[in-house]
Amino acid sequence: MPSIPKGTRDFSPIEMAKRNYIFNTIREVYALYGFQQIETPAMENLSTLMGKYGEEGDKLLFKIQNSGDYFRGITDEELLSRDALHLAPKFCEKGLRYDLTVPFARYVVQHREELALPFKRYQIQPVWRADRPQKGRYREFYQCDADVVGSESLLNEVELMQIIDTVFTRFGVRVCIKINNRKILSGIAEMIGQADKIVDITVAIDKLDKIGLDNVNAELAKAGIPEDAIQKLQPIIQLSGSNAEKLSTMREVLKDSEIGLKGVDESEFILSKLTSLNNPIELDLTLARGLNYYTGAIFEVKALDVQIGSITGGGRYDNLTGIFGMPGLSGVGISFGADRIFDVLNQLDLYPKSAVSTTRLLFVNFGQAEADYCLQALQQVRQAGISAEIYPDSVKMKKQMNYANTKHIPFVALVGENEMAAQKITLKNMETGEQTLVTVSELIQMINVE
Amino acid sequence: MPSIPKGTRDFSPIEMAKRNYIFNTIREVYALYGFQQIETPAMENLSTLMGKYGEEGDKLLFKIQNSGDYFRGITDEELLSRDALHLAPKFCEKGLRYDLTVPFARYVVQHREELALPFKRYQIQPVWRADRPQKGRYREFYQCDADVVGSESLLNEVELMQIIDTVFTRFGVRVCIKINNRKILSGIAEMIGQADKIVDITVAIDKLDKIGLDNVNAELAKAGIPEDAIQKLQPIIQLSGSNAEKLSTMREVLKDSEIGLKGVDESEFILSKLTSLNNPIELDLTLARGLNYYTGAIFEVKALDVQIGSITGGGRYDNLTGIFGMPGLSGVGISFGADRIFDVLNQLDLYPKSAVSTTRLLFVNFGQAEADYCLQALQQVRQAGISAEIYPDSVKMKKQMNYANTKHIPFVALVGENEMAAQKITLKNMETGEQTLVTVSELIQMINVE
Repeated sequence: MPSIPKGTRDFSPIEMAKRNYIFNTIREVYALYGFQQIETPAMENLSTLMGKYGEEGDKLLFKIQNSGDYFRGITDEELLSRDALHLAPKFCEKGLRYDLTVPFARYVVQHREELALPFKRYQIQPVWRADRPQKGRYREFYQCDADVVGSESLLNEVELMQIIDTVFTRFGVRVCIKINNRKILSGIAEMIGQADKIVDITVAIDKLDKIGLDNVNAELAKAGIPEDAIQKLQPIIQLSGSNAEKLSTMREVLKDSEIGLKGVDESEFILSKLTSLNNPIELDLTLARGLNYYTGAIFEVKALDVQIGSITGGGRYDNLTGIFGMPGLSGVGISFGADRIFDVLNQLDLYPKSAVSTTRLLFVNFGQAEADYCLQALQQVRQAGISAEIYPDSVKMKKQMNYANTKHIPFVALVGENEMAAQKITLKNMETGEQTLVTVSELIQMINVE
Repeated sequence: MPSIPKGTRDFSPIEMAKRNYIFNTIREVYALYGFQQIETPAMENLSTLMGKYGEEGDKLLFKIQNSGDYFRGITDEELLSRDALHLAPKFCEKGLRYDLTVPFARYVVQHREELALPFKRYQIQPVWRADRPQKGRYREFYQCDADVVGSESLLNEVELMQIIDTVFTRFGVRVCIKINNRKILSGIAEMIGQADKIVDITVAIDKLDKIGLDNVNAELAKAGIPEDAIQKLQPIIQLSGSNAEKLSTMREVLKDSEIGLKGVDESEFILSKLTSLNNPIELDLTLARGLNYYTGAIFEVKALDVQIGSITGGGRYDNLTGIFGMPGLSGVGISFGADRIFDVLNQLDLYPKSAVSTTRLLFVNFGQAEADYCLQALQQVRQAGISAEIYPDSVKMKKQMNYANTKHIPFVALVGENEMAAQKITLKNMETGEQTLVTVSELIQMINVE
C-alpha cells in the first residue's frame, strides 16, 4: 500500500471544501481592505533562507538536492568527513520556503521598482518545516499572511484588527483580540533596569490567575529580579480593569520611560479607533510573542469557545528587508492559523451548508434512452448554476443510490418511461424521502430554494 | 540583489488576479459537473515517483535531501564512487511531485475504502520538473486536472468535452476540440501490419496540408512502410469532410479490425452526444499524444485566434492504479494548460475588468480629523462589499494620487473641511477626472453601478 511522507496530508473533498471556505473568507476580507495577493515559488535559493530562522531553523529547512552531478565541487575529504550540516549548502542550492515572511521580504527587495509603497500584500501558500511531526504539527501547512510595508502609520494596525474582527465575525467564532506593544515591554524593562528579564516577567505575570500574587512574586525573585524591582512591578502584575484604566495605570508607571510612554500612546491610539468591533479587544501585557522580532504592536487572537492555542497573530517589525540590503522599511502584519481555525470550526460545527455541499443533484442512469433524456435536462440544470451529474453507468439502482449517499448529494432525479412520456422528472429529496413529479424548470426552482 | 531559482516565478498582484480568474473559472465548471477537489502533499515518497516517468523523468525529479545525517547508510566506497544517479535514493527519501496523475493514482489506492466509485476528482496544484528552463517552460508550474476513475462509460468522455466547451466559452476563447481514439490508431496499424509505425504514420499524415500527398507518401516510404501498406493508407491520409463522413470512411477502411471498429464506435458515440457545443469538435486522426499511455479516446484543444500549442489535453487510460497494486480501474481525464491559457487571454485581452480590479476606492488622507471621518465612511463602503482603503499616512496629495494610479484604483474619495461640514464626500472618477459631491450612500451606488 503506498503512503505519503510523515507529517504531510492528503486533503479529501470534504476537507478541501472546508479549507476553501476558510481561505476564501480570509481572501475576501483581505481584498475588501485593499490587500493584493502575490505568490512566490515553493523553492527559494538556500542563500535567501539560511540564517534567517536561527541555527535550529537552518536544520529544519527542507533542502533540494542539486540536479545532475550533485557531487560537483565537493572534495573526497569533505565527503569522507560526513559533516551533514556544513556540506548541505554544497549538495543543495535550493530549499523549500519555511514561512511567507522571508520570501515576502525577498520579493519586496527584488521588485522594489514596480511596487507602489505602502505595499499591502496577502499570500496564502504552503510552507515546509522538517519539524518532528506530532498532533497538530505538520511538515507541510498553509500560512495566510497579510502585511503592509512602507508605512509607519498606526492606521495599518487599526485596519488589521478590523480584518481580524471581520473574518471571525464571518466565521461565527467568538474571539478575544489581545494586543500589546513591544515598546511597553521595553519600557518596563528599562524602568526596573532588567532588560534581559522581560520574558521571565511576562511568563510570571501570566500565571497570576493560577498561582496568586505571592507565588508570582516568588517566581520573579527566583528569576533573579531584585526585590526593589519586584516592588516596582506590582502595579503591572496586578493590572486590571478596562483598557482605559490599564493605559492610565501604565502611563503613570512608565512616566520616566520615553519608549514605554510611546508604547502606551500607540496602544491608546489603536484602541481608540476600534470602538465598534464585534469582538472584545483587550490590552494584555503578558503577550510577548516573537519578542526578538516585533518592535511595536503585538497581536494575538484566542477563541472564546474552544480550548486551543492562539489562532491568529502578528505585529509590527522594523527593517524586514534589511537582511536583503534594503534598510528602513517598517512593516506590520497578521497571520491566520488555518489548521487551528479548521479545528475550531469543526468543533463548533460552523461550516455553512452551502460551503461544504458539492453535487446538488444526481440523475440516476436507467439506460441509454433515459440517459439521453437526462443529458438534455442536465444541460438546463447546469445552466441554472446547479452542480449536477449523471451516474455514468446504468448499473443497479441500489449502487447508484449508495453513490448519492456517500457523496452527500441532497437530490436525485429519476427518469423512466413514464417520466419521458410526460416530459417530466421524478425528483427525490434524499433527506425527507419525498418524491415529486416535476418539469425541469420546477426542479431547478425547488433545488435553488433549498 | 536577491533572486529566485531559475525556471521559477514570482506572481505579482495583477498576474495573480488573472491567474485566479483562470483557476476559478475552471474550478467552477468542474464543480458544476460534480467533480470534487482534492489536494495531495508537494512531497511524495521517492518510491511513489521513481520509475513512473521513464528514465529521463527520474532525472527530472526534484529530490529532497534527508533531514539530519543524510550520509547514514551510505558507505565510503559509495560516496567516493560519486554515482549521482544511483545514490540519489540513498540521500533522498522524498521528492517533489512531477505531475498530478501519479499522486492521484497513489491517493485512489491509499483511500480506496473511503471513495465512492466512480470517483470524479479535480486537482489544481503546482508541479516541479528539473527541465532546462526556456521560454514558456518552467520548473514550477500549475496543472489543473480532472479525472473520473472507476467507470468505463463513454458518458464521462462526453461530459469532459462539455466541460472543455463550457470553460472556453466562459473565457471567450474560440477553440477547436480535436478527438481521436487510440483504438482507431491500433486498428490502422493492425490493418497494414505495421504496429510500430503508428507515430511515423500520424506525423506524416499531419503534414498533408503543408507538403502535399506525394511528399507524404514519400515520407511514409522513407519510414520503411511497404508500398502496399501505403496504398491501403490512402483513404486515411486523404480523410476529409464532416465527422460523419470521416467515421463512415474509417468504418469501411477498418472493417476487418475488431479494435479499429471499436474505436470508430466509441468516437461515433461521443460525437453523437455533443451536437450542441459552442465550439467545433473534430475527429483528427493525426492526434497521437501520449500514445504509450492512452488506451481509448484522446483529446486536444487548439486556440483558433492565437498561434500556440495545445492548450488542453487528455484521454482515457486503463489501469492507472495498477502500478500501486490496484489493477482494473479505468480512468479518463483532462488537463487545462494554465500557463498557455494565461498567454492566450493576455494576447486576446479577454480578462473581464471585474476579475482584475482590486481596490475600487481610495480615501485620500488629509490629516487626523479627516482620517477619522473617512474611517467611518470606509466601514459603510466595505459593508456594501466594495474593496476600499485609506492611504495610511497624510503625505502630499500627489504621492497619494500616484499610489492610486499605480494600483489602478478607479475612484478616489477626497474629504476636507468642506466635505466634513456638509457630511459629504467628493468622489473623483480617475478615468474621466469628474468630481462629484455625494453622500456615502450615493457614493456606494455610483461605484457599484460602474
